[in-house]
Amino acid sequence: MNSKKPKILVSIEKPSRLISQAIKEELESLAEILWLDQCANQSSRLKFIKSASILIGLKLHNEIKHEEWQSTRHMSLIQALSAGVDFVPFEKIPNDIPVASNRGAFALPMAEHGLALLLASAKSLREREIRMRLGYFDQWSPTRSLNGLSVGIVGFGGIGQAFAQLLKPFSCKIFAINRTGNISDFMVSGIGDLSSLGTILPKCDVIVLSISLNKSTVGIIGEKELKLMKKDAILINLARGDIINQEALYNHLKSNPNFQACLDAWWSEPFIHGRFETEYDFLSLENVLGSPHNSAQIPGINEYAARRGARNVAQYLRKEPVDFLVGNDERP
Amino acid sequence: MNSKKPKILVSIEKPSRLISQAIKEELESLAEILWLDQCANQSSRLKFIKSASILIGLKLHNEIKHEEWQSTRHMSLIQALSAGVDFVPFEKIPNDIPVASNRGAFALPMAEHGLALLLASAKSLREREIRMRLGYFDQWSPTRSLNGLSVGIVGFGGIGQAFAQLLKPFSCKIFAINRTGNISDFMVSGIGDLSSLGTILPKCDVIVLSISLNKSTVGIIGEKELKLMKKDAILINLARGDIINQEALYNHLKSNPNFQACLDAWWSEPFIHGRFETEYDFLSLENVLGSPHNSAQIPGINEYAARRGARNVAQYLRKEPVDFLVGNDERP
Repeated sequence: MNSKKPKILVSIEKPSRLISQAIKEELESLAEILWLDQCANQSSRLKFIKSASILIGLKLHNEIKHEEWQSTRHMSLIQALSAGVDFVPFEKIPNDIPVASNRGAFALPMAEHGLALLLASAKSLREREIRMRLGYFDQWSPTRSLNGLSVGIVGFGGIGQAFAQLLKPFSCKIFAINRTGNISDFMVSGIGDLSSLGTILPKCDVIVLSISLNKSTVGIIGEKELKLMKKDAILINLARGDIINQEALYNHLKSNPNFQACLDAWWSEPFIHGRFETEYDFLSLENVLGSPHNSAQIPGINEYAARRGARNVAQYLRKEPVDFLVGNDERP
Repeated sequence: MNSKKPKILVSIEKPSRLISQAIKEELESLAEILWLDQCANQSSRLKFIKSASILIGLKLHNEIKHEEWQSTRHMSLIQALSAGVDFVPFEKIPNDIPVASNRGAFALPMAEHGLALLLASAKSLREREIRMRLGYFDQWSPTRSLNGLSVGIVGFGGIGQAFAQLLKPFSCKIFAINRTGNISDFMVSGIGDLSSLGTILPKCDVIVLSISLNKSTVGIIGEKELKLMKKDAILINLARGDIINQEALYNHLKSNPNFQACLDAWWSEPFIHGRFETEYDFLSLENVLGSPHNSAQIPGINEYAARRGARNVAQYLRKEPVDFLVGNDERP
């Protein structure tokens, strides 16, 4: 090994062969790669952590132990392989250590999954099939078409734009919300920042949440916002459960049977919170369609994401601009 | 009433106000419209039938009684408002009376419904949700992406082309089958007539049936064709149940759990056959997603279809070319 090379610590637990290979292919000519997973004991873990100047991790909140974070303070870059970084323990990371996310890495499959949920709801697939099993062949009650609908996309980054792309053949009107309130490279019917939420919500037949969770976005969909939406709007959460106030959504769904929610993101999930649980029985409601936050998971996507994150680190090592840096305003 | 005007008999049972209005708006300046539904007794029915030179109907097999068909033989045009005409009683209609279908009238909603079924299957929406209700949050098993898939579209008319249009953002390869084996106005990766079915099926990840049912298409998907398909293909029937051999499909689904069928069209349905029933318990299979042949039904579609059929009759009355004429090869 060339000891002059910088050292990168990869903290992924049990990385698959393909993920390890992707990271090696992108980085081994530029750096020495240390695999935290291969450490036999605590002292070798600490040695690895202290000698590496860059950390690449997937579930950083689990992979680096509470007491180990203080040994990362000399690092010059932390690269998360997840798109969202709301569960990265920023309170243990000094603000002067740049943290890069992998935002956009899962945009295409997530948008596709979102369209699947939207169409399944609009077409009442589950309810029609249940009734058909009971012998009721409901051929004539109309279902909704996406054609020409107004779609609000809250968070117009990778996922939001990919979603708008999939809707193109449906001639939907897209009302987008992003951080700057401006966009140059995508035709939309309206764009604003979060302060425009109240103006956009009443117009939209469909509202897609694809915004990252941070202190400015937690709970932005509460009772007031739900009441601004159309009575028969379809709300799709591809982001994080905590973007929505759980109690407010449940009450709204109970009192507005024509309002539909498609929930891929939940308030308590195994990956982030240790277990799946809800305070209200969303899955018993006819106007809820749920999926287990699996929107990103298509074959090969994790290798793709690992390679993409590793490439970002390679850019750093080549002194090129680093992408996806988490701004201080996005830290909790 | 101006008795010089030709008479059009509309046989729709209990036409809605909007449907009646659409037909009147398109035709009352050109013809006198008789509404069979308003006849108080059999003799007035026969008088209407005998005096009209054009018949417009929706469920022609029910609306005109068996013994009444012989009184239609003087007619110069029969316009069906349905897209498929497999249930029109052609055996009672002389070959020299032109029959026009309304093919393509329901193409957009049907394509949209087909995409809903396809995505719901690819994403295992039903199974994931059922397991989530049982407490199993399966976030990591991958689901399929439509991106780059090869899609065979058997019947590349209105529905088939609309379906291909919706798939454009997914960069699918489209292999189309139509009657001529040629197409000029749509980019596809391959096109052929029905004799190419055996060549196209093994290549395709998804096969969509959107072909009209007639003597050349009945049972074209049988045991042999199913075996030619990929083991994990997704077969979508938006056409008619009898395009597929029922027993062969059931056996194939039972022995190939990764093969998925999305069935909107069934072998015995209330509208065409009087009741919904299947010879095999398709709806108990995990690899079947069913809907009650409601793919066409979105708000306003029946008025749209009535207007479209009426406009075709107006073209006839203005001595312009009539669209959607059923060829002799398409009659049973």
